[in-house]
Amino acid sequence: MSIIVQKYGGTSIGTIEKISLVADKIISAKNDGDDVVVVVSAMSGETNRLLDLAKLVDSDVSGRELDVLVSTGEQVTIALLSMTLIKKGFKAISLTGSQAGILTDSVFNKARIDSINNSTIKKYLNDDNIVIVAGFQGMTKDGDITTLGRGGSDTSAVAISVALDAKECQIFTDVDGVYTTDPRLSPGAKKIDNITTEEMLELSSQGSKVLQPRAVEFAGKYDVGIRVLSTFDEGNGTLVNKENDDQMEKAIISGIAFNKDEAQLTIRGVPDQPGIASLILGPIAKHNIDVDMIVQNVGEDGLANFTFTVPRNDFKIAMKSLEKSSIQLKAKKVVGNNKIVKISMVGVGMRTHPGIASKMFAVLADNNINISMISTSEIKISIVTDEINLKNAVNVLHNAFELDK
Amino acid sequence: MSIIVQKYGGTSIGTIEKISLVADKIISAKNDGDDVVVVVSAMSGETNRLLDLAKLVDSDVSGRELDVLVSTGEQVTIALLSMTLIKKGFKAISLTGSQAGILTDSVFNKARIDSINNSTIKKYLNDDNIVIVAGFQGMTKDGDITTLGRGGSDTSAVAISVALDAKECQIFTDVDGVYTTDPRLSPGAKKIDNITTEEMLELSSQGSKVLQPRAVEFAGKYDVGIRVLSTFDEGNGTLVNKENDDQMEKAIISGIAFNKDEAQLTIRGVPDQPGIASLILGPIAKHNIDVDMIVQNVGEDGLANFTFTVPRNDFKIAMKSLEKSSIQLKAKKVVGNNKIVKISMVGVGMRTHPGIASKMFAVLADNNINISMISTSEIKISIVTDEINLKNAVNVLHNAFELDK
Repeated sequence: MSIIVQKYGGTSIGTIEKISLVADKIISAKNDGDDVVVVVSAMSGETNRLLDLAKLVDSDVSGRELDVLVSTGEQVTIALLSMTLIKKGFKAISLTGSQAGILTDSVFNKARIDSINNSTIKKYLNDDNIVIVAGFQGMTKDGDITTLGRGGSDTSAVAISVALDAKECQIFTDVDGVYTTDPRLSPGAKKIDNITTEEMLELSSQGSKVLQPRAVEFAGKYDVGIRVLSTFDEGNGTLVNKENDDQMEKAIISGIAFNKDEAQLTIRGVPDQPGIASLILGPIAKHNIDVDMIVQNVGEDGLANFTFTVPRNDFKIAMKSLEKSSIQLKAKKVVGNNKIVKISMVGVGMRTHPGIASKMFAVLADNNINISMISTSEIKISIVTDEINLKNAVNVLHNAFELDK
Repeated sequence: MSIIVQKYGGTSIGTIEKISLVADKIISAKNDGDDVVVVVSAMSGETNRLLDLAKLVDSDVSGRELDVLVSTGEQVTIALLSMTLIKKGFKAISLTGSQAGILTDSVFNKARIDSINNSTIKKYLNDDNIVIVAGFQGMTKDGDITTLGRGGSDTSAVAISVALDAKECQIFTDVDGVYTTDPRLSPGAKKIDNITTEEMLELSSQGSKVLQPRAVEFAGKYDVGIRVLSTFDEGNGTLVNKENDDQMEKAIISGIAFNKDEAQLTIRGVPDQPGIASLILGPIAKHNIDVDMIVQNVGEDGLANFTFTVPRNDFKIAMKSLEKSSIQLKAKKVVGNNKIVKISMVGVGMRTHPGIASKMFAVLADNNINISMISTSEIKISIVTDEINLKNAVNVLHNAFELDK
């Protein structure tokens, strides 16, 4: 029998009524003849409620105890969903991350999955149970509870799909698929039926909230197909899988993503010498802060200016760390801006179609949108601009590249 | 170094502010030079909030999944308390029941502790941590989460005290000790400084809410001293320990307890034959319902009437079960009453002072209080009467036996 892994996020299971609807979807998959493993997040609002409690204790709280706290969010959901399935006459069992054999490293709050011991899940599947696993969490080899960081439930679902050799990993959410851009911003945004893992990875990394980048990366690495579906509507959603030859003639640009959760830091007037980047970014990495875009250039005085972006939540810590480094590096100035937005155009077609970047810059210039950083990859062009330009920039690009067609 | 175990109930840790007060009490014990292990319940209201969620799914919910759900209540508290201690500059670590090595049987919702593997707690104590353990919960040998049933945190604290050979188990609550009766009912009620485990066991079993009977039983069995203290006031509280010779001349009656959480069931007109009691009570026991008082007598027709009490929560299930049995037993009638109260007078002095029972009955008769059941032990007399008589009965007995002196 083949195995389907389904994942339901917080908004899909925010109330007992919604949990009942989700249970019906699960039962329908079970009745189709597949073994079903379900990964769930905390009920919407619950993780924030717990974080708010923690912040009353310590506004900068982190570490082991925070994971003990927030991991209860998913534990509540697995129990309620399991009860609901049992009430509806099905065999179901809930497993916490630890119980499900999800082993992680011990970077609390941002742990990464090392391995999954699938024996417990398999035991219960063989006994005809629907198995409900708490997403977003795991256990270190010493038995400490860890969490994968926010949104990590997608990663849990993909990792479990890999560990069980599942035929598909279905991510249920409140939208019916992946769109060319955020429909709330651009009414012309269109649903995409198929997208490559590579493109999806870029879109996710660049701010499309539908799938977590780590989950997409994981799926790409182990070649698991992810299908994005709506919990509340019918439809085939968007299938994310490896690039195949049928898709040669697909659109040049798949979508436009944006990310308002970043902040930009600049250190000016540092000596332009080898190793300077690691002297600047090393201390930032030590705080477990992910640096995203990095730009370095040299001014007329022979001194370098160095700009990078970090998650907006980490802005304060990053600024403190950078100010500290600036003294050692004898830099002239440190400046920060947390009212920026990153806008990215993504598409595998860029590889074979030159001139996309220059067209993008021209469209933005024509609309008086100033660019403060640029970064490109093989299938992506990202720019940073002031947050205030977001809606206008996305719409003019969406039109210029005919994504609504 | 000696070990102190402290237990704080839900009302002591109902808010972040109260958790901070509790942390200060813990720190004061730590600064006195003892190793400190703290057992906590869920924040007040939290267990009921979780149960209400479960009841929305299934009004009769029970079993494994319910324990997965409600065990999150204590997990939230251990994390918050541990964070608070860390924020105040102390080393602290939280452990769920599973992590603390609390092994139970697999009677979900009402599990009993089989053993405690103290190695994890000891490891962290040796590393100078204050160890915070989730009360009320444990784990089966298969790794399933269990709960000990409501109020089981006291039992957790005593069991951990035994496992660690602690010098004292301090139960912090919202009253400053054990009283001769409930002060809300009798303004003349007095705090008791010392009480024997035996008396406390009877008082707890009979409805004094200060300590859980299972915890007292456990403490008596393993000779652990329990001290009942107020979280919010100073004072020495009440020490519960083994009877010793100094206490020979103590009061005849220690206290009057009452229990409104019971219901009375009667099966009338059953054949008076050997084994009838087990035929009646066997099916009740199979539902894991604790039967408390049992009275059997034979009527003029040679048929027996059999009356017993059960927890009021179990009344419905018990009635159903009894009605089923009554058909098999060809009984005449089954009646139930869940508006009763049990009132008990407790004192080791009863052993050497005859006539306490007859005085009790006379006092109640003089006050027109009708008795429907009587049960006596070496150090206790219990009667059942209608709930409406509660306040009057307790007060006239408290006066008649001069407990306010």
